[in-house]
Amino acid sequence: MSFYDATVPAFLQILGSLSGILEKTEAHCKAKNIQPEVILSTRLYPDMLPFARQIQLVCDFAAKGCARLTGSEVQSTPDTEKTFEELRQRIARTIDYVKSFKPAQFDGADSRDVTFPVGPNNQLTLKGQQFLSGFSFPNFYFHAAIAHGILRHNGVEIGKRDFLGVR
Amino acid sequence: MSFYDATVPAFLQILGSLSGILEKTEAHCKAKNIQPEVILSTRLYPDMLPFARQIQLVCDFAAKGCARLTGSEVQSTPDTEKTFEELRQRIARTIDYVKSFKPAQFDGADSRDVTFPVGPNNQLTLKGQQFLSGFSFPNFYFHAAIAHGILRHNGVEIGKRDFLGVR
Repeated sequence: MSFYDATVPAFLQILGSLSGILEKTEAHCKAKNIQPEVILSTRLYPDMLPFARQIQLVCDFAAKGCARLTGSEVQSTPDTEKTFEELRQRIARTIDYVKSFKPAQFDGADSRDVTFPVGPNNQLTLKGQQFLSGFSFPNFYFHAAIAHGILRHNGVEIGKRDFLGVR
Repeated sequence: MSFYDATVPAFLQILGSLSGILEKTEAHCKAKNIQPEVILSTRLYPDMLPFARQIQLVCDFAAKGCARLTGSEVQSTPDTEKTFEELRQRIARTIDYVKSFKPAQFDGADSRDVTFPVGPNNQLTLKGQQFLSGFSFPNFYFHAAIAHGILRHNGVEIGKRDFLGVR
């Protein structure tokens, strides 16, 4: 197995499952006559980020993770999505981007240095494997699970099978 | 980098951070005169699992993940913890167990078959890398993040740095 196998499929699994969860959430809102903005702006606590921002961060941690590990240009994506459909498009574009990487780009990336921003004023350099295990994955899964938790807390009928993308 | 490097440090990071979060939560309960049982039994939604069970599952996904990947005996741990201190002890025992694995036990584990239960009546066989990326990690991080979300939703003053274990 290659380092690509340890990276890209993990991101694609959860990005795909989140897209399915967004479909179920949109259907839930229609059925219950809930304005989509209510869910998109819902937080688990006032100083936490709202649902839409959690999804944008999941996309960013996947896309920027792959870019940094492969030494590619790290693109900045404006966070403009205001509907479930726009969030699904953001996820779809992220999936396309993550799929555009070739396995060979990840060869040796586990032991290459990756320098990345932590907070607004600091940088950190880690080996690729440590960047993936210690920063990229925990942040990626954190925001995906918090997004899931926001929906569950608001009564959307999804479960862990939806989170895992198991049909 | 070895498959051990892709596995054990990731589990240890979050197990360690959760132990720190439990300390902060216990201090919060004391300061606010909150009965620990209230937090330990809190859920984000009535049909979700309570906080204590989320922590037990984080421990199980780490311990059983390492056992299955290395072909070791998969131990079953009774879920008896009723206090923050007992949960911290459960985490400490899990950390000791995960640390007991040797890097060589993971050599080749990424491409070995792992057969594991999914739900009460089914089994699935995947290559070790797919088991880790597609099942073990997403479940492990999911329950850790939901535990974090329960605490944040209840006003415990922790942040993502606590989740990541960054001091």
